[in-house]
Amino acid sequence: MPGLITLLTDFGLADGYVAAMKGVILGLNPQATLVDVSHEVPPQDVRQAAYVLATVAPYFPPGTIHLVVVDPGVGSERAALALRAAGQLYVAPDNGVLSPLLGGEYQAVRLTEQRYWRPEPSRTFHGRDIFAPVAAHLSLGVPLEALGEPAEDLLTLLQAEPRRRADGAWVAEVIHVDRFGNLILGLRPDPAWLERLAGAQVGSFIINAVVGTYADVPPGAPAILLGSGGYLEIAVRDGSAAAELQAGLGDEVLLFPM
Amino acid sequence: MPGLITLLTDFGLADGYVAAMKGVILGLNPQATLVDVSHEVPPQDVRQAAYVLATVAPYFPPGTIHLVVVDPGVGSERAALALRAAGQLYVAPDNGVLSPLLGGEYQAVRLTEQRYWRPEPSRTFHGRDIFAPVAAHLSLGVPLEALGEPAEDLLTLLQAEPRRRADGAWVAEVIHVDRFGNLILGLRPDPAWLERLAGAQVGSFIINAVVGTYADVPPGAPAILLGSGGYLEIAVRDGSAAAELQAGLGDEVLLFPM
Amino acid sequence: MPGLITLLTDFGLADGYVAAMKGVILGLNPQATLVDVSHEVPPQDVRQAAYVLATVAPYFPPGTIHLVVVDPGVGSERAALALRAAGQLYVAPDNGVLSPLLGGEYQAVRLTEQRYWRPEPSRTFHGRDIFAPVAAHLSLGVPLEALGEPAEDLLTLLQAEPRRRADGAWVAEVIHVDRFGNLILGLRPDPAWLERLAGAQVGSFIINAVVGTYADVPPGAPAILLGSGGYLEIAVRDGSAAAELQAGLGDEVLLFPM
Repeated sequence: MPGLITLLTDFGLADGYVAAMKGVILGLNPQATLVDVSHEVPPQDVRQAAYVLATVAPYFPPGTIHLVVVDPGVGSERAALALRAAGQLYVAPDNGVLSPLLGGEYQAVRLTEQRYWRPEPSRTFHGRDIFAPVAAHLSLGVPLEALGEPAEDLLTLLQAEPRRRADGAWVAEVIHVDRFGNLILGLRPDPAWLERLAGAQVGSFIINAVVGTYADVPPGAPAILLGSGGYLEIAVRDGSAAAELQAGLGDEVLLFPM
Repeated sequence: MPGLITLLTDFGLADGYVAAMKGVILGLNPQATLVDVSHEVPPQDVRQAAYVLATVAPYFPPGTIHLVVVDPGVGSERAALALRAAGQLYVAPDNGVLSPLLGGEYQAVRLTEQRYWRPEPSRTFHGRDIFAPVAAHLSLGVPLEALGEPAEDLLTLLQAEPRRRADGAWVAEVIHVDRFGNLILGLRPDPAWLERLAGAQVGSFIINAVVGTYADVPPGAPAILLGSGGYLEIAVRDGSAAAELQAGLGDEVLLFPM
Repeated sequence: MPGLITLLTDFGLADGYVAAMKGVILGLNPQATLVDVSHEVPPQDVRQAAYVLATVAPYFPPGTIHLVVVDPGVGSERAALALRAAGQLYVAPDNGVLSPLLGGEYQAVRLTEQRYWRPEPSRTFHGRDIFAPVAAHLSLGVPLEALGEPAEDLLTLLQAEPRRRADGAWVAEVIHVDRFGNLILGLRPDPAWLERLAGAQVGSFIINAVVGTYADVPPGAPAILLGSGGYLEIAVRDGSAAAELQAGLGDEVLLFPM
């Protein structure tokens, strides 16, 4: 493979920021294959970027380079990183956006070798002037270790962990709302846990349908199911759970075992 | 050509759903060329997806594989299809999204050969786990017939057909509103019909300018013209017909012959 | 490089207009590499398209072909152009969208050689039927000069130029508001000018922080800085200057020297 690079940013698609990064990459490696992961991460929302990255990276082949530029600290003392984990490579600021990878084994370097950057990098757009050219050089075969010194003590975001109440119910947080209005919870159930789940409470709504897919309930009905990313999910068939259950990011959902 | 695959979904671009599909495809065929048709189809709107597909496919070269995932019935008993028509290939659920192709000659199979899927497909994301890998295998030369059993009785959406009133006027439906606010009607006129068209009525607005292009009327003025997809279209030059004529999807427009 | 073509339009991504152009290009040159610059230019906003193009093109490699279709005059007598400047190629209507390039040296032709178009071009979609195939032919090595007759007297948009008041203050215009709400001014300062800048006034807000990057001020604070495109910029760290300073496109900003 002549270099597969994904891009994940909060730049939106109206301005030319993403395109400028792509121009820099293709100027260095005309054979690179570029894939957009998302550019609609809410501005500066490192946590949402980490979520999207974690749900997408496992579906890319070994050797893929993920370029992640959600970077509220651009130009400050925050480090810039390249990291290898589970056979893939990542280029990103050290601001927690790579947290999902830091629980396993990895090698990380701090980007200090300026020969792999654009000359005279802007202090407000490291995506174009540092991260993009570094990703391009990785795709050309430059080893991770050549990009800088080993990096330690990487910033990790605390994950929203489900907790158990005294009465046995679980409390989980809505960590993402997707385009369909599905409420994705910060809880990755195993099959045994899921079999014992009886229902959920979202605000004042009680949901009792624990099902396998959206179509297992009638149109307009709410359901609890295992989402495609491995997280527990509250959905409304052919509708928006966020709108109809009046819930959103950060809200708590109660889960009742049998 | 080493495999041109287009993608048309209602997934939006904020989440990583489209990217996960692309990762699966490129993992199987790193040489595939991927082109986004649209991911902004309104959620579960099979009819709008069918419209967009029909206006785009004819401009792609023979052998193009169109991957269409607008799939409200995911995980249910609805069939998954691969279809060959007019020298191109389609991979989509059997929910009417391929209706524009079913009027002509075609060969279709039901996707049942699980060796061309990802193992243990999610029940909520067949796009990633069934349709995307099937498209990738087609791009690698797997014949359509190897993907499953012949499919029959495919679901067809009824098209909004224009009808003629007793007084000779035609009634057509707005089947699409584009980004510019152009009102696209479910009527594909031939040149002779168009020559006899005198005007239109949209709500309480009367439009008499039957023209060849937007610039044939002054800025801000409404016009009737043959749109680039072959459908009759109501437009406002440098403005939005939808906003200025207060009309939208599903509304009826009266067309007056001379 | 087997042909790098960028696309910049006001078509949005919901309809299939951009995809139809890409299908036409890949039908002529299956090896072309396509990069989206932006399709979210406000409808018919030639000036915003010119701004985005100018901030992106310098980051693409020599030989890149930029296809720009923001074309309110489609089908009218406005000319269609191909142009070579600074080692890159441009295909666009003659409506001022290429203005940023016309200050330097360039060669331009009027697209008149119909053999490089699609047959029977629509009068409402030259992007698909004229500009896209011309860009594809350029990527295949057709020389600029073969596409038509030399073009002269190209339309140029007047740039919003900063002006100096009698009291020594400068007045500059907001020429772009990006996704982060940064106010980008029509003023490209040199380092000496920037060193003498003391502050700015936006509406009734006074800003005194002239800094190097967003992170040089506390979260929520406004700042004046040199943006990544070389323009002076008013920003609010981790916030939106447009929202918090209640300013937008076309507004005037006062700049006070020391």
